[in-house]
Amino acid sequence: MRNQGIGSWPARRARMTPGRVALSYQGHDRTYGELRDRAYRLASALAAELGVRRGDRVAYLGPNEPALVETFFAAGLLGAVFVPLNTRLAAPELRFVLEDAAPAALLLGTGREGAGRDGDGLPGRHVPAEAYEDLVAAGSAAPIDEPVSRDDVCLIMYTSGTTGRPKGAMLTHGNLTWNAVNLLVDVPLRHDEVTLVSAPLFHIAALAQTLVPTVLKGGRCVLEPSFDVERTFELIERERVTVMFGVPSMFGFLTRSPRWAGADLSSLRHLLCGGAPVPLPLIRAYQERGLTFLQGYGMTETAPGALFLGAEHSVDKAGTAGVPCFFSDVRLVAPDGTPAAPGEPGEVYVQGPNVMPGYWRRPEESAEVLDADGWFRSGDVGIADEDGYVRISDRIKDVIISGGENIYPAEVESVLYGHPAVAECAVIGVPDERWGEVGKALVVPRPGAAAEPGDLLRHLDGRLARYKIPKYLQFVPELPKNAAGKLLKAPLRKRYG
Amino acid sequence: MRNQGIGSWPARRARMTPGRVALSYQGHDRTYGELRDRAYRLASALAAELGVRRGDRVAYLGPNEPALVETFFAAGLLGAVFVPLNTRLAAPELRFVLEDAAPAALLLGTGREGAGRDGDGLPGRHVPAEAYEDLVAAGSAAPIDEPVSRDDVCLIMYTSGTTGRPKGAMLTHGNLTWNAVNLLVDVPLRHDEVTLVSAPLFHIAALAQTLVPTVLKGGRCVLEPSFDVERTFELIERERVTVMFGVPSMFGFLTRSPRWAGADLSSLRHLLCGGAPVPLPLIRAYQERGLTFLQGYGMTETAPGALFLGAEHSVDKAGTAGVPCFFSDVRLVAPDGTPAAPGEPGEVYVQGPNVMPGYWRRPEESAEVLDADGWFRSGDVGIADEDGYVRISDRIKDVIISGGENIYPAEVESVLYGHPAVAECAVIGVPDERWGEVGKALVVPRPGAAAEPGDLLRHLDGRLARYKIPKYLQFVPELPKNAAGKLLKAPLRKRYG
Repeated sequence: MRNQGIGSWPARRARMTPGRVALSYQGHDRTYGELRDRAYRLASALAAELGVRRGDRVAYLGPNEPALVETFFAAGLLGAVFVPLNTRLAAPELRFVLEDAAPAALLLGTGREGAGRDGDGLPGRHVPAEAYEDLVAAGSAAPIDEPVSRDDVCLIMYTSGTTGRPKGAMLTHGNLTWNAVNLLVDVPLRHDEVTLVSAPLFHIAALAQTLVPTVLKGGRCVLEPSFDVERTFELIERERVTVMFGVPSMFGFLTRSPRWAGADLSSLRHLLCGGAPVPLPLIRAYQERGLTFLQGYGMTETAPGALFLGAEHSVDKAGTAGVPCFFSDVRLVAPDGTPAAPGEPGEVYVQGPNVMPGYWRRPEESAEVLDADGWFRSGDVGIADEDGYVRISDRIKDVIISGGENIYPAEVESVLYGHPAVAECAVIGVPDERWGEVGKALVVPRPGAAAEPGDLLRHLDGRLARYKIPKYLQFVPELPKNAAGKLLKAPLRKRYG
Repeated sequence: MRNQGIGSWPARRARMTPGRVALSYQGHDRTYGELRDRAYRLASALAAELGVRRGDRVAYLGPNEPALVETFFAAGLLGAVFVPLNTRLAAPELRFVLEDAAPAALLLGTGREGAGRDGDGLPGRHVPAEAYEDLVAAGSAAPIDEPVSRDDVCLIMYTSGTTGRPKGAMLTHGNLTWNAVNLLVDVPLRHDEVTLVSAPLFHIAALAQTLVPTVLKGGRCVLEPSFDVERTFELIERERVTVMFGVPSMFGFLTRSPRWAGADLSSLRHLLCGGAPVPLPLIRAYQERGLTFLQGYGMTETAPGALFLGAEHSVDKAGTAGVPCFFSDVRLVAPDGTPAAPGEPGEVYVQGPNVMPGYWRRPEESAEVLDADGWFRSGDVGIADEDGYVRISDRIKDVIISGGENIYPAEVESVLYGHPAVAECAVIGVPDERWGEVGKALVVPRPGAAAEPGDLLRHLDGRLARYKIPKYLQFVPELPKNAAGKLLKAPLRKRYG
């Protein structure tokens, strides 16, 4: 095939295993042969009806569902670029992202029915959820084989930055392929895996650590629109799930459920956990059920795996994120630019075939994080032990990780500043048993302003995705600053954290 | 690391699993940490003592043993090119290959002790087997990290051609890496594999289908200098071998041994078989022991996997070589250049990241087999069934495959013609229960010559590798030719085959 990208994968899989089930969704199965045919149909319809061409963006706004997966592969068949949108974004956030990505087509999924017709203000040409099946039916199942190389951009995934302005990380077909290869080196995935995909596919971890490697191996993805404790137990038992990906809080919710003790977890083989280190008590709770975690460290820009901690070291190296993935490299750089010695902190740099070529239309921000040798500056600080196992100790980037979602305080603060009662503000992360961290806003009110904390939180509602809205908001008389007037978050965390 | 090639693999593995055993050989184990250190030592010594530089060839002449594996990785660390030599070659054949490869260093292994000193005529700078450990000890274990890309040539492997002149297929680090990735997609190799490496590593199948993927996964290779039935049973039982590669005749020998019935084969998980389709009775014999074959089709030039037949189809698709490997493509081209329809024969073309960039210093022969799009012409004929499973039906190339070794009749004939009693000759393959095929020479004696068939066979001895010497040699009154005087082998096969 001339298509060396991921768009060709349903066809490559269907050469080998046309009759195996690729996707299960709400009781319906779709085989690899069907997935291939539907991807061809959708791609030909996108080209014919919406004029999608090589390099054009094709956005999808919806939960985990077959149409999202089909759009991912169909875009790849055309050499177009898939843009999965975070369904949790508030309308102004979504508008910003769509204006930046400027997609040739925006497909609206479940939960957005009618959105395309009632003109809810989203820019671009829409395919309403109701029109999706007609679109697929309008297309041809004849093979499409556009020349696509592994260096071509496969998708753009938006990540908020420390500036508060979301930016699109471009990931190539090669980036996603090599991440899957790194995973196959570390995890003996089989062709009969049943992978529960309930973490949102608009995040890199779910897309790249569950969907992509499962399709590569010819396994079955059980798609779920969202994570739900009861439903997770039900699916594990009924579908005989073998692979699960989640953030620590998801795995924590399961242990606190009344169903935990009696649940049949015997089908599970691999628990992939990302976003934050798994706390030792959680490791123990699963160990008692004969289950170990596969952990790691990564980010959207590295597609995502950079470090990996295998099952055999989940206890003795608990709290670390492991060692570099096989085909990737990680180094820790001390503030003076020299390699950090074991035990000493250093900024985490990542290199390898999984590292993005840059941010979409952001040459300056790309140059800030990528050097000429392809090393990506993560903005996180790590400390390696004598065996090379890296513990992520701090973030140079000001970011809160809450239930696996990255929250950038700068973004929340900029919206808070839009309220007339706010003289100064700072958002910090505070520990939370369920979510790892949650946001806390500290606000110096403008003298004479009559607003209450609740008024400010309501101001955020609708302007920011819900998960970004601080759980706590507290008025304070002043915020600590250094001599140059720069806000100091460390003392704030110490005092209010 | 700047080294993205296979030379970096021992170091990459040692980041993850320094204490796991990489190689077992005659009761001695070597861990990944030791393999990394010894590869560094050998590489630094090759550079310092023998002046090996990037792009230089480093040849190894010896059986499967740790020094061969270390030389492979050490060459890769320097960006040098590994040239494994077939130990079965006769002196004149070996001389031709060495003159063609012009290695900066030739390491002599077990069985060639003293060869470097007594000047046996091999060109190039030698490292006698006795000097090997001193060389390693002279080197430094400090990390070496030369910039090596996956597009750089990793090794040159010689393959005789239809012209009778061996040519070196250049394989890049990427070629071997992608072949291993294709294998991981098809076979769920684990980190605890114990791989018996008794097929010779100077052939692509053993190197690329056993050693390379096992190191990638962090498993253990049990190196054996050669295949021996008794010893194979002994090793399977003692080392708890999980993966074996062989040609059908090797697997056939095992079933005919008196040890077969009582052997403990319970550790075996994957039987990889190449060179020729596994006959159905052999499939059945192993099935009775709960074992299925993984088969395929490939060649040196495709590093080697092109087609793969998984365990689940080993019976219903027996006799075929399967479907294209995941990241590779295969098409069948009819004589008029159009795609061959299912059921119709076509020449097998292979494309993908595993296809060689060309033959060493043979631009014309490279251009003959590789087109501008990277499609490699195999010279074999295949017929696909309706499901895309390809049966290799014939060879456009005149080649005999005997016990997994390719014998090119043209090469044997040219040596036969060197005997004064030979007026005309032709070598054909005849079926053989043990070896699949063996060679049979048909000779028209020169009028008045007094030589017997045995004289001619003795003439070949020492001039050709033993495995190339025909098992049968028969005098015939004439050889069939077409109107243009071209020798016709088909009627010969019909009459004498």
